[in-house]
Amino acid sequence: MSQTLIKELNDVSKEVNLTINGIFEEVKPRELYDASKHLIDAGGKRLRPFLVLKSCEIVGGEAGVALPVAAAIEFIHNFTLIHDDIMDGDEKRRNVQTVHVLWGVPIAIVAGDMLFAKAYEILLRKIDLEKVPSKRIIKVLEVAAEATVSVCEGQALDMQFEKRLDVSEEEYFDMTGKKTAALLQLAAKSGAIVGGGSPMQVSRLDKFAYYAGLAFQIRDDILGLTADEGVLGKPVGGDIRDGKRTLIIIHALAHADEVQRERILSVLGNREASLSEIEDAVETIQALNSIAYAAEKAEMLEEKAKLQLSSFPPTQIRETLLSLCDYIISREH
Amino acid sequence: MSQTLIKELNDVSKEVNLTINGIFEEVKPRELYDASKHLIDAGGKRLRPFLVLKSCEIVGGEAGVALPVAAAIEFIHNFTLIHDDIMDGDEKRRNVQTVHVLWGVPIAIVAGDMLFAKAYEILLRKIDLEKVPSKRIIKVLEVAAEATVSVCEGQALDMQFEKRLDVSEEEYFDMTGKKTAALLQLAAKSGAIVGGGSPMQVSRLDKFAYYAGLAFQIRDDILGLTADEGVLGKPVGGDIRDGKRTLIIIHALAHADEVQRERILSVLGNREASLSEIEDAVETIQALNSIAYAAEKAEMLEEKAKLQLSSFPPTQIRETLLSLCDYIISREH
Repeated sequence: MSQTLIKELNDVSKEVNLTINGIFEEVKPRELYDASKHLIDAGGKRLRPFLVLKSCEIVGGEAGVALPVAAAIEFIHNFTLIHDDIMDGDEKRRNVQTVHVLWGVPIAIVAGDMLFAKAYEILLRKIDLEKVPSKRIIKVLEVAAEATVSVCEGQALDMQFEKRLDVSEEEYFDMTGKKTAALLQLAAKSGAIVGGGSPMQVSRLDKFAYYAGLAFQIRDDILGLTADEGVLGKPVGGDIRDGKRTLIIIHALAHADEVQRERILSVLGNREASLSEIEDAVETIQALNSIAYAAEKAEMLEEKAKLQLSSFPPTQIRETLLSLCDYIISREH
Repeated sequence: MSQTLIKELNDVSKEVNLTINGIFEEVKPRELYDASKHLIDAGGKRLRPFLVLKSCEIVGGEAGVALPVAAAIEFIHNFTLIHDDIMDGDEKRRNVQTVHVLWGVPIAIVAGDMLFAKAYEILLRKIDLEKVPSKRIIKVLEVAAEATVSVCEGQALDMQFEKRLDVSEEEYFDMTGKKTAALLQLAAKSGAIVGGGSPMQVSRLDKFAYYAGLAFQIRDDILGLTADEGVLGKPVGGDIRDGKRTLIIIHALAHADEVQRERILSVLGNREASLSEIEDAVETIQALNSIAYAAEKAEMLEEKAKLQLSSFPPTQIRETLLSLCDYIISREH
């Protein structure tokens, strides 16, 4: 990752965190405050807020007005993480224990709900009405509603797929578009909308985030099999134990012979699978070139994403978004 | 309950159900559709939609324009029910098994999330923009965001209270205001807002719903101890097993001698408590006059609610809202 991008991401993180902390001061009671803030405080790359601010700037807007939008989308993102961790039974994320492990499922559910509820409150109350016409705010709200409905559909599909062995690549991309890309699209679109972008600019940034979002998820799938646990912040092989139908698994199952298939299926969705069994399965998947296949797909999608930016003037902001793309498919966590 | 009110409630239910069914056609995938619609289809009194429409009419608005608002609030209500049932571990509601019992916790979580997400989509996309100025829609959205934040706070407080023996009446009313009254207030306020009510009218209806909401919850607490299970649609004594600090329990604990206190505490929050142990505790609570005390409080709150309507002209709609109050504190389920 380029040093410039690292610096920019850090700068944005700091600013967004200030906004987020300001909003959290209103959250009561204490236990709900702690539980809802836990994952946000544990880190995270603030990629979605970053995308909001840069999308605002690339259409000529002032990043400051987009800060509440950035915070709201980080709230929505963390709401989905808290609930997903319960649904998937995942115990670790960002190198800390997940919310339901620390506070129990009931508090974790309501902590997620609170972040979701607060997100709309932020969009409705924190945007500077002197600088952003209310028409734009309504548009952002519409896009947010649409995106959150998509995320729920995507999450439901993801769980449904765990019970099926015949999930197609097309279905995978439909699910991933909803579960992962939708929030990045929301970030890009809403940033561009509050920044006063034209419908064409909003649409280009929407597609940019869509392709980048798919590439992001594929990279996530790859890291879930190949990363170092400490760097990744959660156990490697978790997706396999959860039975996730990642692009890698779909490719592997489609190309495996009977023995290979058996080896994969013995660990897929098996929460009791040992580390060595997982390693065996990953070796099989490697032998089938499924990880390389997924990496190639991610690169193609990255190229498609970058193409969407070609109509924007060659500014530093465009460079930043292009290097964000590079980061997405080369990141190590 | 007056025959007129029954007929009106039924008529409104039918109309609201048509709107709700129309919106559900967009929900995918199938399993998520079934799980999110389950409790809505199982019945429910549609009290909140009713309050939306009547509050719209009493300020001179046309009920038809408030139908999407009514549907959205019923979505929010059912979202909270699905999540509450998981949090409380309740297995029955409206005489059917709860969503998490039928579909499992993961699908139940996302079914609730979906209803919440859809509610905003409805408010943003289904209101007739030719009849309702966008300023009013923004106001409704603001009120909705505020109410849903309150509901989350209320739910968190409710769970916190289960671990404490020194919950005061004041704390009970604060929690109930957030957990129960807030959604009824949202219904009344948003109906009045889309109907074009003045700030004074909106504020009166807000207070009306606040007091009626507190009375509603107290009646709920009473029914939870005294109703017939078949009529109630869920097991009697559930609140005691869940360890809820209802007004009745707070009063009883404050007035019990040591033996009585022991008898109540032995079942409070004890999910293994037998029916006869529950009955013993209820007898003790009766002896302490705690149920009568709560009933009296509910009546006082009902009177306060009714007073808020005195400045509205004595129309049929006002009569309906007044008899709704009577219904709230005399209902059997």
